[in-house]
Amino acid sequence: MAKIIRLGFLGCGNIGGGVYHLLTEMHDEILARDGLDIQIVRALVKSIPEARTDVPACILTENADDVLSDPAIDMVCEYMGGEQPAARFMEAALKNGKTVVTANKMALALNWHTLHAAAARSGAGLYYEASVGGVIPIIRSLTISLEADRIDCVMGIVNGTTNYILTRMAQNGEKYDDVLADAQRLGLAEPNPAADVDGFDAAYKLSILSSIAFHTRVTYEKVHREGITHITPDDIAYGREMGYTLKLLAIGKRSGNTIEVRVHPTFLRNDHPLARVDGSLNAIYVHGAYCQDMMLQGRGAGDKPTASAICGDILYAASHLADPIVPSFSNTPDTDPSLLFSDDWTSRYFVRLNAVDTPGVLAHVADCFAARSISIASILQRPSAEGHAGIILITHEAREHALQEALSALRSDMVSVESMIRVED
Amino acid sequence: MAKIIRLGFLGCGNIGGGVYHLLTEMHDEILARDGLDIQIVRALVKSIPEARTDVPACILTENADDVLSDPAIDMVCEYMGGEQPAARFMEAALKNGKTVVTANKMALALNWHTLHAAAARSGAGLYYEASVGGVIPIIRSLTISLEADRIDCVMGIVNGTTNYILTRMAQNGEKYDDVLADAQRLGLAEPNPAADVDGFDAAYKLSILSSIAFHTRVTYEKVHREGITHITPDDIAYGREMGYTLKLLAIGKRSGNTIEVRVHPTFLRNDHPLARVDGSLNAIYVHGAYCQDMMLQGRGAGDKPTASAICGDILYAASHLADPIVPSFSNTPDTDPSLLFSDDWTSRYFVRLNAVDTPGVLAHVADCFAARSISIASILQRPSAEGHAGIILITHEAREHALQEALSALRSDMVSVESMIRVED
Repeated sequence: MAKIIRLGFLGCGNIGGGVYHLLTEMHDEILARDGLDIQIVRALVKSIPEARTDVPACILTENADDVLSDPAIDMVCEYMGGEQPAARFMEAALKNGKTVVTANKMALALNWHTLHAAAARSGAGLYYEASVGGVIPIIRSLTISLEADRIDCVMGIVNGTTNYILTRMAQNGEKYDDVLADAQRLGLAEPNPAADVDGFDAAYKLSILSSIAFHTRVTYEKVHREGITHITPDDIAYGREMGYTLKLLAIGKRSGNTIEVRVHPTFLRNDHPLARVDGSLNAIYVHGAYCQDMMLQGRGAGDKPTASAICGDILYAASHLADPIVPSFSNTPDTDPSLLFSDDWTSRYFVRLNAVDTPGVLAHVADCFAARSISIASILQRPSAEGHAGIILITHEAREHALQEALSALRSDMVSVESMIRVED
Repeated sequence: MAKIIRLGFLGCGNIGGGVYHLLTEMHDEILARDGLDIQIVRALVKSIPEARTDVPACILTENADDVLSDPAIDMVCEYMGGEQPAARFMEAALKNGKTVVTANKMALALNWHTLHAAAARSGAGLYYEASVGGVIPIIRSLTISLEADRIDCVMGIVNGTTNYILTRMAQNGEKYDDVLADAQRLGLAEPNPAADVDGFDAAYKLSILSSIAFHTRVTYEKVHREGITHITPDDIAYGREMGYTLKLLAIGKRSGNTIEVRVHPTFLRNDHPLARVDGSLNAIYVHGAYCQDMMLQGRGAGDKPTASAICGDILYAASHLADPIVPSFSNTPDTDPSLLFSDDWTSRYFVRLNAVDTPGVLAHVADCFAARSISIASILQRPSAEGHAGIILITHEAREHALQEALSALRSDMVSVESMIRVED
């Protein structure tokens, strides 16, 4: 006998509309195959007169309570975006025992504890596959397929806007500002691009991803965050000359009880699988003790891919309404004081300097690194402006703090640090 | 309170040993996190005196009934390989209500209906994530994450041995026989390599993969199968000259009610994501109406990756013992006569001919294609042996049957068909 599942939507724009159409299109097939009769009974919109016309007007409402408090609604799907009121609405739905499906990384990352606690208390489910990597089934792969493994690295291109910008800068040597303006014209970047280009979006996603991968709560505040606004075509060109491709990466690593989480522009070896993920694609690389290396790539955004991921959650949640599947956390910094978030990670570094072209400058540079036991793997020097030289070097593995000290020591009348970009092998 | 799950192993070689060690290593963490107390209580081996010594002797048995009929055993994990007695044993376990986890694509593909029917009758679970693509979570991605989508293509590199051989042939221009011999020495190919190089292994996996992706039963017999034994370094070199990389692909496509399933060497555009999957890696590409394109790559074989995938299944199965998750099938050729398996698919084709170098030969070649409305996209001619010319061409999209007819018409005293390789764009 068919199980009726009644959905309420919070928001009904492009993504909500996509979900509506996919579920309507597939209704009979899902009913026949899975015995689930999915009905969309309510959709909260800002303004009914301005709502999309391809969704029946009779389900639209401007009153959130019609969705959050209607006892007939089993599941609430949130597509509002932004932190509030989305987080508050989701919490209310969970408290009322309604399973919540969301793609909202910001609301989730910033209210992780509140939302998970509300779900645990009422026994409702909370699903957010689409919040990271769009259609890429990374949350479920980590929580189900890799549940028995010990994941030590999860690393990815999780923001399509910045990947599009960096790809175009690399392919055509264009400047950041020019590509950004063009991306804004094409609708690939927001009028206020900060959430993407300053790495906020990637940091929210990394907070979620590493919480799941490492079975502990990694709050957004723990994430070291740098964006791409300072990247120049020169950096990209020199990196390529040395065999590297530039990506904005979200990197989570765990070694014993030490965790590092960081979002920053990163040079990858040209033959690294992530180096070839171009344009607005997303991809996530995972390494574990047993699974070894694995990579998942797909559309990180877009109405249809996001709708596909959300509908996967809806059907999965519908099959587990009475007994929701929740990611398991073994320990948190609160319960396990040995858990440490480090900002003194190990990496290789690309450093571009501009130096007065005078005897002794290269020796000074070499000394500053050597004094902190940082060894240089490769170096190239090029004449730059009149009387100056560009010095580009890549270090061997070094500690972040030591590198920062070396850069401080370097900065002088003679030497300016034009850029420092971490290198992942 | 912890739920005790008692496992019985069928086989305890490299993979069984890997699963034993991973579950032992992670026992306390899984118990704390998931409330599952996983106990390995019995392992069937061929010979106790010859069994591995890193698994406790007290759990070993040479009698399959000790595993299959012990009412204390909740779940049976099969690592024997080969069709029989593995399939018989799994059927017996399922009939006794025990959930079965297996990585055995051959036993599963050849006994799909029997095993699924036995599981359905007794209400036991049947899980086989590790049977296709090793650690790549493709089965679960298709059955859960993409359950609401409409998949029209699933296509992959699912055999590591042949990918290793083709990669080396491409990189070093080595001959098939030489690389095979070397792969056998390195333990990367079996002494009898037929299962891999003739495409049987890939065909078993495609049968499973397309059954899941298309929600219908695609029997092994429906799969068109060609291996790589006839591939020459020349084919690979000419393909590269024209912008293509050669891979042994398993291809499943669905359009409306027509399904095509085929395993054969395939030229891919150099910038296709699958073209860059080298060595013994596996990767699976999926295309759906909403998810669009997606690719998952990882280790397709090896003790540890396989153990990781199997343990993922074990934990997932353990959480669903009472109410197992089974892939859903909407229709089968038996219940839906409109479902059609076609062997007259559309593709582009790479054709290499050897022709007597005499006036009119090229016109004859062109005529044979034109007469069947096959249009040629690119062509190159090279002198080959004395008085002969090599003609290499790539067609536009054409029907398989028309192409085969054109090749039959071409074959003559003047022209020999050296190779025909399908091209996927």
